[in-house]
Amino acid sequence: MLPDVSGLTVGVLGGTGPQGRGLAYRLARAGQRIVVGSRNAERGITAAAELAELPGAAAGEVSGGDNAAAASCDIVIAALPYEGHAETLTALRGELAGRILVDCVNPLGFDQRGPHAVAVPEGSAAEQAATLLPDTRVTAAFHHVSAVLLTDPAVSSVDTDVLVLGDDRPAAETVQALASRITGVRGVFAGRLRNAGQVEALTANLIAINRRYKAHAGIRITDV
Amino acid sequence: MLPDVSGLTVGVLGGTGPQGRGLAYRLARAGQRIVVGSRNAERGITAAAELAELPGAAAGEVSGGDNAAAASCDIVIAALPYEGHAETLTALRGELAGRILVDCVNPLGFDQRGPHAVAVPEGSAAEQAATLLPDTRVTAAFHHVSAVLLTDPAVSSVDTDVLVLGDDRPAAETVQALASRITGVRGVFAGRLRNAGQVEALTANLIAINRRYKAHAGIRITDV
Repeated sequence: MLPDVSGLTVGVLGGTGPQGRGLAYRLARAGQRIVVGSRNAERGITAAAELAELPGAAAGEVSGGDNAAAASCDIVIAALPYEGHAETLTALRGELAGRILVDCVNPLGFDQRGPHAVAVPEGSAAEQAATLLPDTRVTAAFHHVSAVLLTDPAVSSVDTDVLVLGDDRPAAETVQALASRITGVRGVFAGRLRNAGQVEALTANLIAINRRYKAHAGIRITDV
Repeated sequence: MLPDVSGLTVGVLGGTGPQGRGLAYRLARAGQRIVVGSRNAERGITAAAELAELPGAAAGEVSGGDNAAAASCDIVIAALPYEGHAETLTALRGELAGRILVDCVNPLGFDQRGPHAVAVPEGSAAEQAATLLPDTRVTAAFHHVSAVLLTDPAVSSVDTDVLVLGDDRPAAETVQALASRITGVRGVFAGRLRNAGQVEALTANLIAINRRYKAHAGIRITDV
C-alpha cells in the first residue's frame, strides 16, 4: 500500500539533461505537476515549453525555472552530473530543507575500456547528498532507467523496475509510488542509503550490457 | 552463439556450503559432471553422495573430494566465504593454472541494520582472485542466485538472469553457457572484472529486498 502522490509537485534539478528531461516527460505523461529546473532559468523555461508539447505531456502540467524553483517542489529529483552534484545541492540547502530529494546520480568514468564506477568519498552520491543536506529526506532512485526510452514518445511503456533506497521509510514509499506512476515501471524498495553505492555503480554494467547486446537494458526484480 | 559446455567437468570449491551445494545440484540436474570440493575430502565425498540422491541429480554425475580435486576440473566455481577466499585460492594456484574460475563470492557484512557491502582492497573478490591467480582465466557470476531456490528440489525452474563478468571473452562466454544450462537461468555478459564490485555488493540490496518483501529475489535484465 503506497501513498497517493498524484497531487504532489515534482521538481527536476538538471531537468535539461537527458535523464532529467526523460523523467520529467514520463511523469508529466503520468499526470504529475512538474517544474523543470536548470542553472539558467531561461533554459528551464524553454525546456519545459518543449516538453509540454510532446505527445501525452498535457496529461500533467509542466513549467520551468531555475534550480531553486525546482527545489521548492514537494519531491525534488536530482538529475545532475556527478561533477556538479555537491556544489548544486549545497547552494540549494535552504530550499531543500524538509523536502524529499530523489538522487539519481551515477558517478561513472569512461575510458577506452568502457564505463567504470568512480569512488565517492561518502560512499555514494546519495550519501553525499544526505551529508550535505541534513534537513532533507534523501532517497535514491531512477539510476537505471534508459534516457533514450524515457524521452522517446513512441515508447508507451518503460518496462523496468526502479530500485528505491532510503533510510526514511515514508519518503522511500513516496518515491516508490512516484516511480510506479510511470507506465511499465514499478518502484521496489531496495535498502538503506548505505547500500546505494553499488546501485549507482551498476549503471556501468548496464552500459556494458547495452554495448554488448545493442540494447537499452533495464532491471526487473523477480519473485517480488 | 555460446559454446557447448555439456562435456566439461565443473568443480565447486566450498561445495558443502549453501550456494556451492545449490549450484552443484542444479548443474547436475542439467546433466553436468560435478566434483564437490571441501577443505575436508571426507566432507566433500559425503556431500556429493547426498547430492546425487536428490531428485533429478542422476542426469549428471556427482563425485566429491578435497578442494584440490575440485580445482582440477575444466571450470571451477569458487563458492567460498569471503573470509577464506584469498587463502584458499592462493593454496590452489597450481591446480587452477590455465582453468576457468567462476568467482561467486559476495563480500558482505551484517549488523543490526542489515546487510552491507564490505570494501575489498582489490576492488572486488573477483579482482582479488585475478590478482592472486595470474595464470587462471578469472570470471565472476552466480552472485545473486538464491541458495534456497537452488537447493529446493520442488523448484523446477530458477527464473533469473546470471550476470557474467570477465576480461577473457571466451571464458566469459563459457560461463554464460554453463549458467544457461540451468533451467530458467540465462547467462548475460555484464562487463569487465573492474565492474564486478558493484555486482557482488548488490547482493546486499537483494537481501534487503528479501527481508522487505518476504521473497527470494533475483534479477532479470530487460531488452536483452
